[in-house]
Amino acid sequence: MARYDFASDNTSGMAPEALASLTEFNDGFMAGYGADPVSARAADAIRALLDADVEVRFIYSGTAANALCLSWLVRPHEAVLAHQYAHIVGDEVGAPEAFGGGLKIVPVPGPSGKIDPKALQAVLDQPEQARFHAQAALSLTNATEFITVYSADEIAALTGPAKAKGLKVHLDGARLASAAAAGFEMKRLKDLDIDMLVMGGTKAGMLTSEAVVMFDKSLARRFDTRTKQVGQLPSKVRFLSAPWVGMLESGAWISRAAHANAMAKKLADLSPFPAAHPVEGNGVFLKMPAEALSRLNAAGWAVYPFVDGSARFLCSWATTEESVEEVAALMRTLV
Amino acid sequence: MARYDFASDNTSGMAPEALASLTEFNDGFMAGYGADPVSARAADAIRALLDADVEVRFIYSGTAANALCLSWLVRPHEAVLAHQYAHIVGDEVGAPEAFGGGLKIVPVPGPSGKIDPKALQAVLDQPEQARFHAQAALSLTNATEFITVYSADEIAALTGPAKAKGLKVHLDGARLASAAAAGFEMKRLKDLDIDMLVMGGTKAGMLTSEAVVMFDKSLARRFDTRTKQVGQLPSKVRFLSAPWVGMLESGAWISRAAHANAMAKKLADLSPFPAAHPVEGNGVFLKMPAEALSRLNAAGWAVYPFVDGSARFLCSWATTEESVEEVAALMRTLV
Amino acid sequence: MARYDFASDNTSGMAPEALASLTEFNDGFMAGYGADPVSARAADAIRALLDADVEVRFIYSGTAANALCLSWLVRPHEAVLAHQYAHIVGDEVGAPEAFGGGLKIVPVPGPSGKIDPKALQAVLDQPEQARFHAQAALSLTNATEFITVYSADEIAALTGPAKAKGLKVHLDGARLASAAAAGFEMKRLKDLDIDMLVMGGTKAGMLTSEAVVMFDKSLARRFDTRTKQVGQLPSKVRFLSAPWVGMLESGAWISRAAHANAMAKKLADLSPFPAAHPVEGNGVFLKMPAEALSRLNAAGWAVYPFVDGSARFLCSWATTEESVEEVAALMRTLV
Amino acid sequence: MARYDFASDNTSGMAPEALASLTEFNDGFMAGYGADPVSARAADAIRALLDADVEVRFIYSGTAANALCLSWLVRPHEAVLAHQYAHIVGDEVGAPEAFGGGLKIVPVPGPSGKIDPKALQAVLDQPEQARFHAQAALSLTNATEFITVYSADEIAALTGPAKAKGLKVHLDGARLASAAAAGFEMKRLKDLDIDMLVMGGTKAGMLTSEAVVMFDKSLARRFDTRTKQVGQLPSKVRFLSAPWVGMLESGAWISRAAHANAMAKKLADLSPFPAAHPVEGNGVFLKMPAEALSRLNAAGWAVYPFVDGSARFLCSWATTEESVEEVAALMRTLV
Repeated sequence: MARYDFASDNTSGMAPEALASLTEFNDGFMAGYGADPVSARAADAIRALLDADVEVRFIYSGTAANALCLSWLVRPHEAVLAHQYAHIVGDEVGAPEAFGGGLKIVPVPGPSGKIDPKALQAVLDQPEQARFHAQAALSLTNATEFITVYSADEIAALTGPAKAKGLKVHLDGARLASAAAAGFEMKRLKDLDIDMLVMGGTKAGMLTSEAVVMFDKSLARRFDTRTKQVGQLPSKVRFLSAPWVGMLESGAWISRAAHANAMAKKLADLSPFPAAHPVEGNGVFLKMPAEALSRLNAAGWAVYPFVDGSARFLCSWATTEESVEEVAALMRTLV
Repeated sequence: MARYDFASDNTSGMAPEALASLTEFNDGFMAGYGADPVSARAADAIRALLDADVEVRFIYSGTAANALCLSWLVRPHEAVLAHQYAHIVGDEVGAPEAFGGGLKIVPVPGPSGKIDPKALQAVLDQPEQARFHAQAALSLTNATEFITVYSADEIAALTGPAKAKGLKVHLDGARLASAAAAGFEMKRLKDLDIDMLVMGGTKAGMLTSEAVVMFDKSLARRFDTRTKQVGQLPSKVRFLSAPWVGMLESGAWISRAAHANAMAKKLADLSPFPAAHPVEGNGVFLKMPAEALSRLNAAGWAVYPFVDGSARFLCSWATTEESVEEVAALMRTLV
Repeated sequence: MARYDFASDNTSGMAPEALASLTEFNDGFMAGYGADPVSARAADAIRALLDADVEVRFIYSGTAANALCLSWLVRPHEAVLAHQYAHIVGDEVGAPEAFGGGLKIVPVPGPSGKIDPKALQAVLDQPEQARFHAQAALSLTNATEFITVYSADEIAALTGPAKAKGLKVHLDGARLASAAAAGFEMKRLKDLDIDMLVMGGTKAGMLTSEAVVMFDKSLARRFDTRTKQVGQLPSKVRFLSAPWVGMLESGAWISRAAHANAMAKKLADLSPFPAAHPVEGNGVFLKMPAEALSRLNAAGWAVYPFVDGSARFLCSWATTEESVEEVAALMRTLV
Repeated sequence: MARYDFASDNTSGMAPEALASLTEFNDGFMAGYGADPVSARAADAIRALLDADVEVRFIYSGTAANALCLSWLVRPHEAVLAHQYAHIVGDEVGAPEAFGGGLKIVPVPGPSGKIDPKALQAVLDQPEQARFHAQAALSLTNATEFITVYSADEIAALTGPAKAKGLKVHLDGARLASAAAAGFEMKRLKDLDIDMLVMGGTKAGMLTSEAVVMFDKSLARRFDTRTKQVGQLPSKVRFLSAPWVGMLESGAWISRAAHANAMAKKLADLSPFPAAHPVEGNGVFLKMPAEALSRLNAAGWAVYPFVDGSARFLCSWATTEESVEEVAALMRTLV
């Protein structure tokens, strides 16, 4: 039988704190569309974590949350700058472009998923021309697609020049819990020139729930109307917000991510194959021969080659030491 | 404190069978994006209910599911015929038009939310002209916005002429459980010329989950790609499909709806105000003076005037006899 | 052989001044995309006519110009208020909605194509709700679809309340020449709270060319990029702007429209059938029995019933006294 | 004063045959929206040139015509394969993506603007995956962006494999006249598996007019409705079709292009700088040092570096031997 332990960080169920919270808040009648006390409490928990007076909305899907934010910040004839391997570039079937009515994503290079500040500056320095999409936003991802982690200073070094040119800033935080567990300072987010943040619940151990956080609160004007229009305003928002209450108030959002990070580190340590990228969060990318990967797959382990050719192993709150040891032991026979 | 018991059928939590199933299937690692055994089992349960070999997909939101289906059946320069008070007309901030890149919804009249066959025929008889959207689909709703219930024969009387003119047919079944509990024969759906059905989980007592059912299985080609693009392909589909397993295998999808219907009937019976529409499902629309409704609201009951001016009371699986009696007693003091 | 003299005001060719100007400016090499001296000169002529320092762009199509402007002023989840019989409502296959990614047009009633100020106020007074498109613009048409003419004061009475609520204002001036010839004061436009004006060339006797005029010059930022994206930025703009030079510098834009207006007046005077609307511009709507219209059509005259059931006769710069007399004489035999 | 002789092939006016035809057909009243005799005659001339029974529509803009066709052949979740330097990739501000509601263009490499058949096959061989746009069309350009010319056999070698995989085929023929003048056999087009062809009038010496040619006539169903919706259905179509009558019936569409091609050849012969690509049509790309190009610009010649770094010189029907000699003489002083 196939083993999905390392296939992605969305192959596991809800963490106990999320499920407990969901169960707890299942009772009783509540107003729909976000006006319920559970959602208010979850938003408060996010404000506390960020130490910032932000607007918060709960959205079903990370793909949709990113696309919704980008189409909110940018008009159809404008462009978003993003890392060439960002999720919004290659993994969302053009959702940002579709939501945005024709907006363009301009890829920017950089090692291991992080935008190179010089490469960004070179793009920012291009003169605006009427027959090309005009640069209007910068999108960052933390942790990155290669599960490397930007420090607050590294983010500031990218958002500063973008802001100086008038761009808006979006942060895809699908794996922000992993970054936080790796030391990223959540309370510094408010000072990093970010307009909209998508804070990930799904990969942190909830059902499927992402929080859209608006540091610039004026962005919330008519946002719910747009959210409804794109099919992302749940009637029963409490089911998206309840897991946040459980995960944040207990500290599990970070502590469960720390476990996932530790499992990735352990796998890197035990692996006979070298890592292709720094192991900073909940994933390891191994330089394995195709033959070895095939045999791993044949043994039942669902693990896939990533865009750079390495084999991607992701861990989650549910990953066990035993499974790490088991797959590592198998790998040692494949060298 | 406000009482949301009758404000909508989405103000209650999950029915016990849904929550139990969600909890049961939380364990273990599973493939994402629909390739998991829970989703397969839920789809089987739907096929059994319909006695039909259909394609099934699980979608977060009813608004999105309708918009996705309509944009799948109709191109931007084409039109969908729907009842003038259908949910897709007035309650989705133009989601179908937005998903569909400019498609148009043409309203068709009829009493108590049901399309009048003669009115439909009159619209179908209009000659196609290049400078107007071309008719390409018919959208029905069962139970309707006024919670009246089409019989299978009534549906056939509408879909037959539409099909004869080459239109596709979509059925918005957000409240199909209510219709089924009211006697609508689920096994006849497969013979009613319906191409795509949105089968409601949310209002039937799940978290937020709708099943897109394709009677014409060829429609499933590349559907997942489009679903991903519009932000409606969950990574953790098991959480959308698990409640369906619990609700369908136990029979609760219909039996819980039967309770909701019974509560609406009881409320109609106890109400001193007359019903504006036939009480056939889980809702009652009362002809109340504005003054009486104001006083009801002031007493804490969140109940709203509907598009026809009547006061809409909706019941769900969680509605209690006590609350029905309580609100009815209060109403009798307001006459 | 069919006679299209009165079928529309777009069935005639270019007025002599337009054709002469097009021919004159055909020679030589010029920069593309609007940076040519002919376009600059045409824009100057428009600024002189309006006595205002406006931004001007030349666009192929009136449908596209309206859709482009509305999608520029309004976002997908926002609404445009317009007369229920405005061209943007019923005659453009949803171009504004398609360009605008889902924006909605809210129809407002009023007699003979003019918005009733009280009806507008009633719409403006509706409270904003998250689940409906938010009002963001008012669109007016002068001359109207029934070829009636707003005075500057009448426009101010509509745009004032709209502006007070924060709406942007668009004026569809496909037949603005006809309004100007009927006495509308062009130099007052700049004081009427209009953000974007589409000034009609096509129906005024050019080939197909509309001028987008931005009273709020900041709206021109990145407008050319968007115009290119929607396929409305011509490479050879000089061919769209040249006719404007000829028509405006000679005064023909208004004097040719005055002729069209006079022909409509003459037709109304000679017609045995009464006019359904005030005859103020270049059109007459006659209350003819269907039988009479059929016989008119059978005699070769292409004239169509309009949305209100009356028969629409439009005149242009090319309409001759003889054709007016001929059709009127025929009509007198049909009474 | 700036000289735009070589800046593009859209900096010149109409060829005499186009202007004469426009003037000739200016008289009289005609039906709008394409139902006029001039448009019928122009379509006949195109059918004669192609020796094929095709559907023809006249569109304002090449950008729009391409975007319209691609959005007609492909749905939002599907992809178009095109040369990496095709006009639709980099020069239309994402018009195809915007018209197509999110469709994706997948770039394919190849030398001098032509798709390498092996590179195409490699893309076609990629397995379809639900989370990426599905391949649905191939777009070719003849003459290419580097003004090289595909032979009919070369096109067949690309469209054959595409068709075998079920893709539709679009041909951007903005410079098809140049290809025809270079020997491309127009009568073979009908046998090359092309579904939709955009045949260029603008760069061939008309005002701005492109002909959309449908080899698969069933594609014309409801096409006018869509064309109206995207703002590309002119009321006065005769002004777009008239130049085609003059240019095709006289043979000028090809003979004027032959002149342009000859001027490009002459410039390549006289230039002291080598050509970066084969000189097959109406353009020359010269490998000039940046310093030399700067001095050419400073002398008033508007010539721009192209995407490959070479300096692009385009010729048109209006290019004179004298201007070629003049600019070549100047270049010889810049070596």
